[in-house]
Amino acid sequence: MKNPILVPELRSLLKKKSFRVLESFLEEGHAKEIAEYIAMLNPDEIWRLLGLVDVHRRSEIFGYLDMDVQVEMVSGVMKKHIAELLMEMSHDDRADLFLHLEKDIADRILLHLPVSERSDVINLTSYHEGTIGAIMTTDYATLNEGDTVEKAIRKIRKDAPSKETIYYIYVTDDSNRLTGFVSLRKLILARPKQKIANLMKTEIIIAFADDDQEKAARLIDEYDLLALPIVDNSRRLLGIITYDDAIDILQEEQTEDLEKLMAISGGVEEKSYLEVPAIVHFRKRVFWVVLLGLLGLLTSLIVEEFRETLEALIILTFYMPLLNAAGGNTGSQSATVILRSLTLNELFPRDIMKVIRKEFTISLLLSICLAVVTYVRVYFFPGGTTIPGQFTLINVSLVISLSVGLQVLWSTIFGAIIPILATKLKIDPATVSSPLLTTFVDMVGVIIYFSVAKLLLGI
Amino acid sequence: MKNPILVPELRSLLKKKSFRVLESFLEEGHAKEIAEYIAMLNPDEIWRLLGLVDVHRRSEIFGYLDMDVQVEMVSGVMKKHIAELLMEMSHDDRADLFLHLEKDIADRILLHLPVSERSDVINLTSYHEGTIGAIMTTDYATLNEGDTVEKAIRKIRKDAPSKETIYYIYVTDDSNRLTGFVSLRKLILARPKQKIANLMKTEIIIAFADDDQEKAARLIDEYDLLALPIVDNSRRLLGIITYDDAIDILQEEQTEDLEKLMAISGGVEEKSYLEVPAIVHFRKRVFWVVLLGLLGLLTSLIVEEFRETLEALIILTFYMPLLNAAGGNTGSQSATVILRSLTLNELFPRDIMKVIRKEFTISLLLSICLAVVTYVRVYFFPGGTTIPGQFTLINVSLVISLSVGLQVLWSTIFGAIIPILATKLKIDPATVSSPLLTTFVDMVGVIIYFSVAKLLLGI
Repeated sequence: MKNPILVPELRSLLKKKSFRVLESFLEEGHAKEIAEYIAMLNPDEIWRLLGLVDVHRRSEIFGYLDMDVQVEMVSGVMKKHIAELLMEMSHDDRADLFLHLEKDIADRILLHLPVSERSDVINLTSYHEGTIGAIMTTDYATLNEGDTVEKAIRKIRKDAPSKETIYYIYVTDDSNRLTGFVSLRKLILARPKQKIANLMKTEIIIAFADDDQEKAARLIDEYDLLALPIVDNSRRLLGIITYDDAIDILQEEQTEDLEKLMAISGGVEEKSYLEVPAIVHFRKRVFWVVLLGLLGLLTSLIVEEFRETLEALIILTFYMPLLNAAGGNTGSQSATVILRSLTLNELFPRDIMKVIRKEFTISLLLSICLAVVTYVRVYFFPGGTTIPGQFTLINVSLVISLSVGLQVLWSTIFGAIIPILATKLKIDPATVSSPLLTTFVDMVGVIIYFSVAKLLLGI
Repeated sequence: MKNPILVPELRSLLKKKSFRVLESFLEEGHAKEIAEYIAMLNPDEIWRLLGLVDVHRRSEIFGYLDMDVQVEMVSGVMKKHIAELLMEMSHDDRADLFLHLEKDIADRILLHLPVSERSDVINLTSYHEGTIGAIMTTDYATLNEGDTVEKAIRKIRKDAPSKETIYYIYVTDDSNRLTGFVSLRKLILARPKQKIANLMKTEIIIAFADDDQEKAARLIDEYDLLALPIVDNSRRLLGIITYDDAIDILQEEQTEDLEKLMAISGGVEEKSYLEVPAIVHFRKRVFWVVLLGLLGLLTSLIVEEFRETLEALIILTFYMPLLNAAGGNTGSQSATVILRSLTLNELFPRDIMKVIRKEFTISLLLSICLAVVTYVRVYFFPGGTTIPGQFTLINVSLVISLSVGLQVLWSTIFGAIIPILATKLKIDPATVSSPLLTTFVDMVGVIIYFSVAKLLLGI
């Protein structure tokens, strides 16, 4: 913005009743920026400001306010214009607001809405979180097959202000079944007398209201759509998802995948890091920290089992951190690559054998590299370590580097297989977090290490 | 698609010259789906098929073919219609194709393009990879401030077929400087005689061609834009980025961040996991695996330093994996949360003190939980472990659980600070991978562990 008007200025302009200045401030700029500026005022002041612009712009700015502010603004004394504002809001944003209101306030406000809008809110708020139904919007434009282009454009001009998008227009029959769609671009280019039936596309990408929201977002991404129509089992049009919702979904899913991968549980918070209280952050992290801690304690039992081997050859202890790190790193790498390919639909569970073959080659190369490095370190730079008489340095070096190699080999393949198996078992593969994998790989690594030592050195 | 026509069918239809059937197949459905079907034919067959539809549809389908296929198709004998097709393609897709052609082929084809198109290609291919310039497109629609709505719509109808989007139209002055923009929605709603100057928005979100491509994508996401205008330092309009490009950029950046976080180096591959040769996968992973291995070997030196402590109290060895896991897990958690908040612009380096305060509270809670669990395990379930006479079980339990607590405390805070410091130092925070963090935290953890033991137990 060229001339940002700050909170004290806004207040004094309101006091001085400089409505002309305020109006042009509210009309210019992106609604999101305006919302950010006025959010710092109190609800009453915001109401007075929003009263200066038409209801369309008002609802647009209102929709960009933080959910807290929105809830506070409609939860106060019932204002006449609340109903008016709500009727103008995007249907998906409105449904979201109702989900955040207290039950009695929501009911009271619903009473002030016309029956059709009321049932729209009730309907849209009834879908489970995470499904397409829960985020779709019902304010799309529709046409009939029999309409001419001329008539269609007239209709769209009339409907436009209350529609989320008019760039894709859906064609439905008498029972509201989706039969086709036409873009505004195509309408603008067509001859006025042309029939919609001859213009529309009938091969349409669709999704169902019960599908996972990520599915809708992936379709929009894959086919470069502006909007995706959502239907029920009888192909009746229920709503649409627009590209901007798709971007938000993909961002949210990415955050969720990343957090799961790093052993943070619970869904994605709506608020930002600093706004979320420490105790909530703690709750999201403690489950896995303690669980993985318990698994770590299980590892301690395994190490304990090999007490005698350890006591006989203390040098083995020095390389335990290396062994753990090597397994954890390579396992996490392959798990990450496979997980991402599964998420992006570039890889499918049926490809498991191809993955194993490929990861075998990769891990063999990696394990040779790391085993050689380890051998060089142990054999050529033994430092002050004393090797008990019954063992030779070359044997000990071989045991350690062989263990590192084996650990890399199995960890890489294991890391790659796990997300695929999870997908096959219909478990979200991201739940198999990298720390869980690392901890498990550590545990097996200890067994590999001391078993190789016992076997080759006879301790 | 309702009636997928498979490769052999397509071939036999081509042989039988059933052009009517093929034409309707090519016209219906999404261009991406058509491209997927015909991609399996040979270049010559694809050319013959594409010849059946008008050049607009042809270029649309062509743009969805894999880059390999595109390159093969234009690299063969120079076909007359190549120039025609290239003139109709999205300017950004076209520039991308030229970047993949061999130099002499690109030059030969360029000669067949009109001068204006030629300089467009040369211009768009001149930007550095990763910048906005390298992915923007130049086929946008423009208007003058003085145009009336009537005239504007006539102009758009004429220009539409060759424009990437006509839903946002940019207003420029005589020197091509961006002065405003107007949406097609607004144009459709306006009175025919209204002047564009009175209709357009003048407060526009813009970006520069040299900016990082991620910046453009984030702006499109944040402001729910269909397209973002890209300008030079004099505010001259150079191109636009559309929402579908933004989605692709965000996906690619996410893959890159994830791979970096998991210690996989190099950029994101254009091809899918199975298409990338094992040796390339190996190269992307080996750098960090070996480097982290070397760091792991450094840790072995540190453990070696504490040889006497270890030999005096072998039980300490058993809990080393737990200590490593606890530090790695909590450090990775906090690093992930902070990294994601930085990426989404929800957190800024100036917030560092707030982050430290918050993470201190979180880590204190986590460390108490884990220390208690550890204490219970060591003290109440000592198993067959013998503690040498000079130590008591209670002391040893205290040392181990205190070390675990301290390790969690410092790792969590360290994990949170590192991405912030990296951002301050203008290093991509994702480069500070979780395995690097884990390895470093391990190293310090060993020092903490044995120092606490030495100090409290006097060994």
